Amino acid sequence: MKDTVVVERKKIKLKKAILITGLPGIGLIGRVVGKYLIDELKGVRIANLYSPHFPHQVFMTKKGGMKLIRNKFYLVKTKKYDLVLLIGDVQAITSYGQYEVADVILDYAKKVGIEKVLTIGGYSTGKINENRRIFGVATDKDLLKELKKYGVVFGVARGSIVGAAGLLPALSKLKGIRGACLMGETHGGYVDVTAAKNIVVMLSKLLEFKIDTTKLENKAKEGEKVLKKIEEELQKNAITPYEGATKDVSYIR
Amino acid sequence: MKDTVVVERKKIKLKKAILITGLPGIGLIGRVVGKYLIDELKGVRIANLYSPHFPHQVFMTKKGGMKLIRNKFYLVKTKKYDLVLLIGDVQAITSYGQYEVADVILDYAKKVGIEKVLTIGGYSTGKINENRRIFGVATDKDLLKELKKYGVVFGVARGSIVGAAGLLPALSKLKGIRGACLMGETHGGYVDVTAAKNIVVMLSKLLEFKIDTTKLENKAKEGEKVLKKIEEELQKNAITPYEGATKDVSYIR
Amino acid sequence: MKDTVVVERKKIKLKKAILITGLPGIGLIGRVVGKYLIDELKGVRIANLYSPHFPHQVFMTKKGGMKLIRNKFYLVKTKKYDLVLLIGDVQAITSYGQYEVADVILDYAKKVGIEKVLTIGGYSTGKINENRRIFGVATDKDLLKELKKYGVVFGVARGSIVGAAGLLPALSKLKGIRGACLMGETHGGYVDVTAAKNIVVMLSKLLEFKIDTTKLENKAKEGEKVLKKIEEELQKNAITPYEGATKDVSYIR
Amino acid sequence: MKDTVVVERKKIKLKKAILITGLPGIGLIGRVVGKYLIDELKGVRIANLYSPHFPHQVFMTKKGGMKLIRNKFYLVKTKKYDLVLLIGDVQAITSYGQYEVADVILDYAKKVGIEKVLTIGGYSTGKINENRRIFGVATDKDLLKELKKYGVVFGVARGSIVGAAGLLPALSKLKGIRGACLMGETHGGYVDVTAAKNIVVMLSKLLEFKIDTTKLENKAKEGEKVLKKIEEELQKNAITPYEGATKDVSYIR
Repeated sequence: MKDTVVVERKKIKLKKAILITGLPGIGLIGRVVGKYLIDELKGVRIANLYSPHFPHQVFMTKKGGMKLIRNKFYLVKTKKYDLVLLIGDVQAITSYGQYEVADVILDYAKKVGIEKVLTIGGYSTGKINENRRIFGVATDKDLLKELKKYGVVFGVARGSIVGAAGLLPALSKLKGIRGACLMGETHGGYVDVTAAKNIVVMLSKLLEFKIDTTKLENKAKEGEKVLKKIEEELQKNAITPYEGATKDVSYIR
Repeated sequence: MKDTVVVERKKIKLKKAILITGLPGIGLIGRVVGKYLIDELKGVRIANLYSPHFPHQVFMTKKGGMKLIRNKFYLVKTKKYDLVLLIGDVQAITSYGQYEVADVILDYAKKVGIEKVLTIGGYSTGKINENRRIFGVATDKDLLKELKKYGVVFGVARGSIVGAAGLLPALSKLKGIRGACLMGETHGGYVDVTAAKNIVVMLSKLLEFKIDTTKLENKAKEGEKVLKKIEEELQKNAITPYEGATKDVSYIR
Repeated sequence: MKDTVVVERKKIKLKKAILITGLPGIGLIGRVVGKYLIDELKGVRIANLYSPHFPHQVFMTKKGGMKLIRNKFYLVKTKKYDLVLLIGDVQAITSYGQYEVADVILDYAKKVGIEKVLTIGGYSTGKINENRRIFGVATDKDLLKELKKYGVVFGVARGSIVGAAGLLPALSKLKGIRGACLMGETHGGYVDVTAAKNIVVMLSKLLEFKIDTTKLENKAKEGEKVLKKIEEELQKNAITPYEGATKDVSYIR
Repeated sequence: MKDTVVVERKKIKLKKAILITGLPGIGLIGRVVGKYLIDELKGVRIANLYSPHFPHQVFMTKKGGMKLIRNKFYLVKTKKYDLVLLIGDVQAITSYGQYEVADVILDYAKKVGIEKVLTIGGYSTGKINENRRIFGVATDKDLLKELKKYGVVFGVARGSIVGAAGLLPALSKLKGIRGACLMGETHGGYVDVTAAKNIVVMLSKLLEFKIDTTKLENKAKEGEKVLKKIEEELQKNAITPYEGATKDVSYIR
């Protein structure tokens, strides 16, 4: 294992397949979306990705087991599309590692028949807006137009996307796969379940699958209450949230 | 030598073979256990491991010789098992290097017939407990059950294991070798011979070899006296031990 | 894409071809020169260079598109020479990456028939001189003599050139290509359009192409006014410009 | 040039050949010794070594030329031995790079017939002793005994040698070449020509070549005067020399 590898648990060959990635990043939006889709749509693990570009750490489990750091691929077969969901606890720790891991992910995606890559991230505004939009960027115009129909806002988010949420669709273009990055509008300093919920709802429309969003909505409501309180406190005391933390989460989308 | 290499001194082929690693880490427990087993059980050096991921330094010896930084493999044939002991002065200095070195160690282990990997480390609690437990994590349930019988405590240590003590058993699973990490409960800021002694005693029961632990017990008693004094001083003066040092030793287990 | 790659958009084979590089560096002089030549001489994009040694970021465009970080090659056919222009937003972020990217650029240059490499950079003096010279270094004497005729000053700039502006011509020598680095004399703390203009004018004489420099001259005049004001303010208040910024821009030429 | 390479200027095949390295390090002793031997014994350049592990910088020369960072091999044929001298301005900037460069140097050494590697460095004592000894470490006993006869002191210098002076002889052992590191006793904070002179004199006896040491002795005398003054000043004012500088030079021997 001198390089990043995908270890397959099941050999699969897909049709009309879409890769959706939910890796940790701003507001943990990608992570929350990915986990929720897998749980609710009963995703089946099809592969693990291991990399020497992940931290040299191993997690201990409640039961006394141990887990290598990895990213995990799940398969969900919906009415219209085969969805491959990628989630994980970390992203590669160096710039070079980010490129290598993205490359290995896309080689695997290509091999199993992925035609489109949608990455889920967050777009940090430093504010808590009631109506949080979904910002998008895409590698081709048709995909952009399609996403626009479902409310994704293009041309507003500016600057750069750091990490896998940007690299995966941008690199996918070089491999003949279409791609887009969907970013939930978010404060940036807090886990944002509402932004995640918005993306889940949008995806269910776009990809025509049914999903029970009750649990996510409940969590989102709780989250909103907490955020409101935080906001009030901040306004009262004119305290800025701990800067280091904010920077950390905004670093990778 | 552009990559990590194992240079064999003896070609060996083993039966019922177990790899036990004692590399530097928290409380230097692994290091003390590894060294003691080799000394008392009269281990024979079978191989050296060199790596460009070790520091670019060379040690000068008392007699005017020089030694490359390396990890060393020793063989001990006990009544029931062939034991391969791995010790060394350092671990790889980058995350990538840690993965590469672990991979090369396991390839060598596989080649010579290792069936099980037991790594020895420390688990830092920040306290000096009289009865120091041995915490464990394992890659498969049978090994976990077997270790439990010998007093190893599972499911209590939580968080992550940094370095070779975690990577080696976790990666060994990918190569079809079973593995566990045994961590001596320890303060974390001091070399802990008592915790090391506990592990030596446990291993001698688990692996059914006889070992004279007198020297280790004597050192442990001396160590305990020193620790008691330190503890008293700390309580008197409410001084925390030098933080940098504590962090350093806890970093790699 | 585990390594740096050049992705060609057009297969070309050139005659009397010269590579001119305008990558970001001191005073942004290279960047300004490269961009201006491409715009005014109507360069056609012939290839993109991608590298895992660039930052792991993706730019979002005004229209909702996304762009991988890359360097871009353009072709301009002038009366006398085929010019290949290399521009980009970044240079590789590690020393190793700088060597790898330079090597891949030169392999491509060699393949398409480049005979000479001219890199454009800045030479930081910490002062704002009215008459900004063009300093040069070259890998062979004939090229040096030729450039001297066009006013390039040799033997005055001393020290070292950091980044692609130095590596490319120096490495090109190992591949049998001649090379020189042309450095606009500049303060170092500000974008210097005047220095860039000087180089554009010199290149047009050296390489015998016609170019409308009106736009560049206008920008340069504006820039000079701003610089004058800055200088006056500095002298009034004896304030040194923000040091970090100065250092950053001087780091790579 | 994705890896470290030796570019040969002359194909050579040597007999009774010894590699002597004089790279920058503590007290610049190695550098001074290497340069002096090449100048006085009229060494002929036989090869250059280039590496992506060197800084990504290029030096500008007085005449307007440019030089890649490199290490240089020179050949001196003495009465009894063929000497290959290695000098350079820098060492590799990462630990991994140090191993790679050392490996490539030794492959070249092996190829041209080197039987022995002698590296020259400094051993920092923090004091200015009148009679500066030469400390040594060696990879085999015969070489150690031989060097002892010529006054080299073994078993006194302790700790570790950082950089090429240590890596080259230690790694050479793995390739069947004998090696030693000769370290001039020195303060560590200053260029030490006297320590360098001592080593040149010793080498001329050991390797039975004649060398005019007048220039070196003159420089050494001047150096001593300067050092005396510095020492007096330090004792008067109890000033410690600039620490950063001291550390830098001691880092690599």
